[in-house]
Amino acid sequence: MIKNTKKEKAKEIGITASKEKNFSEWYNQTVLRSGLAEYSDIKGFMVIKPLGYAIWEKIQEVLDKEIKKTSVKNVYFPLFIPESLLKKEAEHFNGFIPEVAWVTKGGNKKLEEKLAIRPTSETIMYYTFSKWVRSHRDLPLLTNQWCSVVRWDTKATRLFLRTREFLWQEGHTVHKTKEEAEKRVKMMLDIYKRFVEEYLAIPVIDGEKSELEKFPGALKTTTIEALMPDGRSLQMGTSHNLGNHFSKVFNIKFFDADEKEKFAWQTSWGVSTRMIGAMIMVHGDDKGLIIPPKIAPIQAVIVPIFNKKNRNVLDKARKIKNELEEDFSIELDSREEYTPGWKFSEWELKGVPVRIEIGQKEIKNKELTLVRRDSGEKIKVKEAQLKKELNEILYKIQTNLYEKAKKFLQNNIHSVTNLTQFKKAVSKGGFVKAYWCGNPECEEKIKEETGAGIVVLPFREKKISSKCIYCGKKTDKVAYFARAY
Amino acid sequence: MIKNTKKEKAKEIGITASKEKNFSEWYNQTVLRSGLAEYSDIKGFMVIKPLGYAIWEKIQEVLDKEIKKTSVKNVYFPLFIPESLLKKEAEHFNGFIPEVAWVTKGGNKKLEEKLAIRPTSETIMYYTFSKWVRSHRDLPLLTNQWCSVVRWDTKATRLFLRTREFLWQEGHTVHKTKEEAEKRVKMMLDIYKRFVEEYLAIPVIDGEKSELEKFPGALKTTTIEALMPDGRSLQMGTSHNLGNHFSKVFNIKFFDADEKEKFAWQTSWGVSTRMIGAMIMVHGDDKGLIIPPKIAPIQAVIVPIFNKKNRNVLDKARKIKNELEEDFSIELDSREEYTPGWKFSEWELKGVPVRIEIGQKEIKNKELTLVRRDSGEKIKVKEAQLKKELNEILYKIQTNLYEKAKKFLQNNIHSVTNLTQFKKAVSKGGFVKAYWCGNPECEEKIKEETGAGIVVLPFREKKISSKCIYCGKKTDKVAYFARAY
Repeated sequence: MIKNTKKEKAKEIGITASKEKNFSEWYNQTVLRSGLAEYSDIKGFMVIKPLGYAIWEKIQEVLDKEIKKTSVKNVYFPLFIPESLLKKEAEHFNGFIPEVAWVTKGGNKKLEEKLAIRPTSETIMYYTFSKWVRSHRDLPLLTNQWCSVVRWDTKATRLFLRTREFLWQEGHTVHKTKEEAEKRVKMMLDIYKRFVEEYLAIPVIDGEKSELEKFPGALKTTTIEALMPDGRSLQMGTSHNLGNHFSKVFNIKFFDADEKEKFAWQTSWGVSTRMIGAMIMVHGDDKGLIIPPKIAPIQAVIVPIFNKKNRNVLDKARKIKNELEEDFSIELDSREEYTPGWKFSEWELKGVPVRIEIGQKEIKNKELTLVRRDSGEKIKVKEAQLKKELNEILYKIQTNLYEKAKKFLQNNIHSVTNLTQFKKAVSKGGFVKAYWCGNPECEEKIKEETGAGIVVLPFREKKISSKCIYCGKKTDKVAYFARAY
Repeated sequence: MIKNTKKEKAKEIGITASKEKNFSEWYNQTVLRSGLAEYSDIKGFMVIKPLGYAIWEKIQEVLDKEIKKTSVKNVYFPLFIPESLLKKEAEHFNGFIPEVAWVTKGGNKKLEEKLAIRPTSETIMYYTFSKWVRSHRDLPLLTNQWCSVVRWDTKATRLFLRTREFLWQEGHTVHKTKEEAEKRVKMMLDIYKRFVEEYLAIPVIDGEKSELEKFPGALKTTTIEALMPDGRSLQMGTSHNLGNHFSKVFNIKFFDADEKEKFAWQTSWGVSTRMIGAMIMVHGDDKGLIIPPKIAPIQAVIVPIFNKKNRNVLDKARKIKNELEEDFSIELDSREEYTPGWKFSEWELKGVPVRIEIGQKEIKNKELTLVRRDSGEKIKVKEAQLKKELNEILYKIQTNLYEKAKKFLQNNIHSVTNLTQFKKAVSKGGFVKAYWCGNPECEEKIKEETGAGIVVLPFREKKISSKCIYCGKKTDKVAYFARAY
């Protein structure tokens, strides 16, 4: 065993903060020490390291396929938006102007017009769409792009959750009718919901944003919201019905089958690397990350327990790796300079769902020891059954992570009927479910007085006649309030 | 048949310029009318449309897999580089400074330090690498990122060939020894060469760049160069041995097994969307694009010849589509508002390698008519043999495209032994192969007097003692000169 250098000693420490007692510090340590990402020296920016990026690639792989199945095609639009274009839709411009990074110089020359680094691409894309759309036969126009965006946020940086540059996917579609656009809005939100629940193992509440919280320039914003362990809500994805606001501003018109010229209807929708932040928070524990098997870059790691005298263990481990690789993504940790114990801790920190231990005893008994990352459970598996058993265990882990998160969500939706209850519920954290009259003034007052705003007006709620929690006016509108990321 | 609107009439025209007579205009028309990309309204920027982006995705898919096979991991570094970091390596900074876009404002505030939009990421990545590398066990460090870069070029925009923003892949590696770095440089250039020749069907000359033409800050730049139909050379990919210049500047040091601290050795390597430009130029013809089958987003398009009376043709076409889709990427053009003739032209313009025609006659004879995009050849194929035959035809097209390009290349390498011959050869276009003493002064003089610079010092040339074409000094160094993109 080679002597560990200082750096490795530091790594050995693992996570020292408790998720329950110091959530924020636990989160930072988990991201940094697992090797997902780190701070860049430019304030507000992050470096996504191999493990973090591999998770993003997994997300892209699954989502891109789902998006393309709905006939959407990928495109790439310029990184820059001239100030004049960004300004065209006033609400949109005002929404983004405080957080835009501006290019003012190209080479050694001052630019005639400032260029914004895209905070989102509606304006530059729609300007071009107006040239692409002429006839009803050019519609629907269904596009998407994977790129980075920049928003000059002034709040403190949180890796994956709040950085000035982040990676995302932004879909933009143009339709003949309002109904078709609305259908697309719903379709994409459903894809996001299914993805987040099935792959990231995070249950979400789907619904609408309030007028105050909707996307700048949109007619309506729909959202999926997830509850984090610290009781705050995190927006996992949004899908906007843009109505024909932008099409009127950018002149996206088409000749319909009835030979009349009409303004088109539009949608936009996106998810970002923020989802990785949610995954870390929801599933991780005091040993580090726990990555849901369906999204894990490495689903199982084989740790052979060997020394110079029993290299046959290593040979066996290699053979097992080759077999498993046909169906799973597998890593074999054959490093000789680390002890098995060290390796166990490192792979736990990195959130690999299953560890496969193999030593002399296992070889003798023609079995393997599988260890679940989520529960720590050790399972002896006969070698002949390995593939089948590993498959089942991965499935169980995926299900268990989702069920645990779902239980947490359900236990933390607090229904209240008056403001005193409301305030008490907010202090506990979680979603506070309350009736609300629909008036933005009540919404703002509630936020001012309690710190909790409306995060979602849920789709899946029975409408019962009741009273607004704030003003007492009759209403059947249910809102989920929460402190939010 | 619905009446065509003005826009469609315009499309109907197809390519009007001749590739042979007006290459530049032919190129523009081909890119624009096939729907690969278009100009953005921001000077120097392009919009990559669905067809263009789908080709880029194919390139990414193949190359990313090849890169990862060599143990490289993908990462993502910030879009911005602080001026102070960019400045650290003087040669590098001076090389890029005239073409950097600068962010000077974030939100409403002037930034304390200007931020460059990355023209390439050596400086920002290596600053971080210095924190990642401590021990020889941290090496090799093998990373890659897919992103866009911005270079504020002032020359005229050419879609895919010269735009201020382009998409690329940049690999960056750190090694213990010079030899290991050199091996990586060669390994990546070989991957690029194989990819370009096997997938894009473009033969290349691999070799080194001269001192004058190497990457700013590199010890050595290796390159693959392809010959375009207008006789100019296009750099398809480069792989740089950075020596330990950057590691000394950014302090990338490691403790070796001998417990001594040493500076690391580095490489970087990249290819970009420029390759798509080369593919268009090399293979296209006066009908439009010809996309090599191995990189084609649609490998074959089925055009049913049907009307209201024989909808059974459409049913049959659908059935065939479903069968073929198991093994090929297939489009069925079932639009009723266009004639088959119109469709033939459109898919030819878009470069789909094979058209499959199916009408009453084909159904009766249990056969299909396949039309090769490259040769125009019509081939009757028995339905039962379709998959096998289509596979063979695609293979033949791929091979034919490569062989044609290779013949063109071979016919346009002109060996010369004196300056008069040299000038005559340059005027014909193509590579001019000549002996050169290695002195940058001779290289510059030749370029001044002839317009042709050294594009590559080829690896695969026999060394024969001869004389420098310019100064007459004895040398065994062969150089390929050309006008270049």
